[in-house]
Amino acid sequence: MDGEIEIPNFYVILVEPKYGGNVGAVARAMMNFDFDKLYLVNPCPLDEACYTRAMHAGEILDNVKSFSTFHDMKKQMDYLVATSSIQYLKDKKHLRNPVLLEDFSEKIQEVEGNVGLVFGREDYGLYNEEIAACDIMVRIPTSEEYLSLNLSHAVSLVLYTLYRFQELTPKTKRDIGKVEKEKLYEFFSHILEEINYPPHKKENTEIMFKRIMGRAMPSKWEYHTLMGVFSKSIEKMKKKD
Amino acid sequence: MDGEIEIPNFYVILVEPKYGGNVGAVARAMMNFDFDKLYLVNPCPLDEACYTRAMHAGEILDNVKSFSTFHDMKKQMDYLVATSSIQYLKDKKHLRNPVLLEDFSEKIQEVEGNVGLVFGREDYGLYNEEIAACDIMVRIPTSEEYLSLNLSHAVSLVLYTLYRFQELTPKTKRDIGKVEKEKLYEFFSHILEEINYPPHKKENTEIMFKRIMGRAMPSKWEYHTLMGVFSKSIEKMKKKD
Repeated sequence: MDGEIEIPNFYVILVEPKYGGNVGAVARAMMNFDFDKLYLVNPCPLDEACYTRAMHAGEILDNVKSFSTFHDMKKQMDYLVATSSIQYLKDKKHLRNPVLLEDFSEKIQEVEGNVGLVFGREDYGLYNEEIAACDIMVRIPTSEEYLSLNLSHAVSLVLYTLYRFQELTPKTKRDIGKVEKEKLYEFFSHILEEINYPPHKKENTEIMFKRIMGRAMPSKWEYHTLMGVFSKSIEKMKKKD
Repeated sequence: MDGEIEIPNFYVILVEPKYGGNVGAVARAMMNFDFDKLYLVNPCPLDEACYTRAMHAGEILDNVKSFSTFHDMKKQMDYLVATSSIQYLKDKKHLRNPVLLEDFSEKIQEVEGNVGLVFGREDYGLYNEEIAACDIMVRIPTSEEYLSLNLSHAVSLVLYTLYRFQELTPKTKRDIGKVEKEKLYEFFSHILEEINYPPHKKENTEIMFKRIMGRAMPSKWEYHTLMGVFSKSIEKMKKKD
């Protein structure tokens, strides 16, 4: 980001796509809605079917960046968004407690930095550890009769919704850097330690906190204020030990 | 329609589709969004690629009705909707003066009877005389850089928008009781007191916390977990005073 108007810098990220044709159809959909950065994790070859289905979007394919692992890709991103059409039970599995696509499209406009929109495999979607590594999970609403979307259709729906939102509204900015975010999560973990939080529950509660913050998308100022409250609390708890 | 609630009875109509795979992908998208009636005008054969791409939506293909001409198909419909992503000059060619997809999705809910959503050929779209035979033209907004949508993507976007419109009346609710919410805010205030937060900043920070939680819309379970962490923290800070 180098302009005065800070907006999210979107990347479409496909995790282990199996068919070149699907990757091509995704590239075409990207061009239809003004997205151009495509990252792939351990992908199939970008074969002839891929370029054929991309139609006029061959340049997006030429500029693809591939990573061998999810972790390597994650390092390039400030904010990762897991996508799914699966509706998991609420509350019980808060790991997958999702935000609806429309609500997400509104909130994400205020985030700065590299935002990765992550789409899973054609058959298995995203693994739990991949979802856990994301800042937020977005659900594309579908019929309960048949949840599983074609990969390029899922990408199309997400990009279209983002595109429409950007078209229909002027944006304001509200976001934080990666560093502040990590720091706040760290403080929260410290608090859990200070209050002798049950170790077997700790990780889940940490993920829950991440999800809550992910959905709220606090501003820099809000993050700093919360960090102040947390660090003072830790200080006070420590002093008395 | 035989119920008391009259809603449009939607048909997806593909005019001269050339590739079975596309028809299959359309059938899958239809099932994803609770549409099941597919009409074809002078189509390609519904080959193996068609059934493969339809995945679980084979039944929609089994029940396809094919017509040899546009005119024959039209006789079955009460209201025909031409779709396109092409933006024609307004006024001059009012034949193609389109309504935006979102506006259409709202208005069409009031129409009763058989509503045909007409999608054109993969290469040429709809001919002028076909558009002229329709009651309305709907535009799917896309980037000016690249207007031409993949056929099944276009169908997906239209059906998704209609589906969402119908769904959104009873809103999904993820919220908590007033009591839990007030309790959590109270705990947060206690923490501020325990850490001797500057009184002139206190109210602002309380409001900020409220706002963050308001945006995150935590579940009941998430609220209880946070309340647990906060109350334990307060306890520990107090004990040592």
